[in-house]
Amino acid sequence: MAGRFISLEGGEGVGKSTQLAALATALEGRGIEVLVTREPGGSSGAEAIRKLLLEGEETRWNPRSEALLFAAARADHVEKTIKPALAEGKWVLSDRFLDSSLAYQGEAGGLGIEAVRDLHRFGSLDFLPDRTLVLRLESGEGALRARRRDGEEGDRIGSRPPRYHAAVDRGFRVMAEQEPDRVKLIDAEGNPETVTARLLYALGDLLP
Amino acid sequence: MAGRFISLEGGEGVGKSTQLAALATALEGRGIEVLVTREPGGSSGAEAIRKLLLEGEETRWNPRSEALLFAAARADHVEKTIKPALAEGKWVLSDRFLDSSLAYQGEAGGLGIEAVRDLHRFGSLDFLPDRTLVLRLESGEGALRARRRDGEEGDRIGSRPPRYHAAVDRGFRVMAEQEPDRVKLIDAEGNPETVTARLLYALGDLLP
Repeated sequence: MAGRFISLEGGEGVGKSTQLAALATALEGRGIEVLVTREPGGSSGAEAIRKLLLEGEETRWNPRSEALLFAAARADHVEKTIKPALAEGKWVLSDRFLDSSLAYQGEAGGLGIEAVRDLHRFGSLDFLPDRTLVLRLESGEGALRARRRDGEEGDRIGSRPPRYHAAVDRGFRVMAEQEPDRVKLIDAEGNPETVTARLLYALGDLLP
Repeated sequence: MAGRFISLEGGEGVGKSTQLAALATALEGRGIEVLVTREPGGSSGAEAIRKLLLEGEETRWNPRSEALLFAAARADHVEKTIKPALAEGKWVLSDRFLDSSLAYQGEAGGLGIEAVRDLHRFGSLDFLPDRTLVLRLESGEGALRARRRDGEEGDRIGSRPPRYHAAVDRGFRVMAEQEPDRVKLIDAEGNPETVTARLLYALGDLLP
C-alpha cells in the first residue's frame, strides 16, 4: 500500500507539537508505520539550511533570501526523506510544510502567496501533502494570548504584533479555500484528546 | 558619481582570475575606487551558503536545491555588499554573477534559463550588472584542453564531458544575444595584456 503524506500546520500556541505526537501514536495504533519529520529540516542538507535560518540575528536574512532558503531546504527534504519513506509505504507526518511558507512569508511577510508557491513549483515540482491539517483557535488572538500566559510555546514570534498573527491565520484560511480537499481547518480548542479525534476524523477517507 | 557594477564570466581555464585582478588594477589606475567580490559569496550570509554549496560530496544537493541556494546567496550579496558599494560611488567587479547560474545551471544543467532567471527576479528583483564581460576561447574546447595541460585552473569541472562545457558556452552566447547591451563576449586568446585591453575597450562607454 502506498504511504500518505500529512502535514500539520498552525500558528503559535495551538498545541501543534502535542498533537503531532498524539496523531503519530494514534496512527501507529492502527498498524500504520509512521515517519515523523519537520520543517525547516528533515534531511541532512535541509537541517544544515535550518541552522543557517535559525542562527544569527533576526535581521540576518532579508525576506527573499529566507524564502529561497526555505524552498531549497524543502526540495531536499522532499527528495531525500519524504518520497523515499512514501515509497516504502510509510505515512509521513511533517511538523510544518509548504503552507507555513505560504502563510508566514507569502501572506504575513508580504511576498505574496503565489510568488512563494512558484518557488515550490520550481524546487519540488509542486509536490503536495495528501492532506494538510491546520490547527486553529477559532476564538482568535484572545485565546492565543490566554494560552501564552500559561507559558506555552512561541515567545519570539509571539512578540510580533497581533496583525502579523492575523495575517498568518488569513493565509491558512486562503489555502483552505483554494484547496478544500487538501487543506482542512481544525478547531484546536478543547482538551487534547478531543482535538486529536478531530484530526483523525479529517483523515477518515485516507485511513486503511 | 554613481558606481558601476561589472561582472566577469567565463568557462573554466579562460584566465578569469588573472583578468579580474588586472582589470581592477587598470580601473584603479584611472582613479576609480574598486570593490572586488565573488559568487557564490561576497557577503557574510552568502559566504555561509557558499560553504554549504562547496562542502560535502558532489551529489549532496539536487540541481533545484542548488539553484535556490545560489539565488538566496545572490539576493544577500546584492543587498549587503553590491548595492551599498554602488551607493558609495564604487565600481563593483564580481567574479561571476547571475549569468553563471543561467549558463551552468539553466542551460548546461537543464533547468532552463528562464526558470533560473525567475529565481533572480524573485530574490533580487532582477537586479543586473551594468555590463557583463564573458571571457571565451573562440577556438573552443581544443584550446581549453591545451591550456589545461599547462596546469591551469579547473580540474573538477574539467572532468565533465565536452558537451557540458559546450552547453555552458552556449548559455553565455544566448545571454549575449538576448541582452547585447549588457553582455559582451570577449576573446580570451592571446597574451594577458591584450585580453585586459579588450575588457577595458568593452567598458569604454562606462568609463569616466
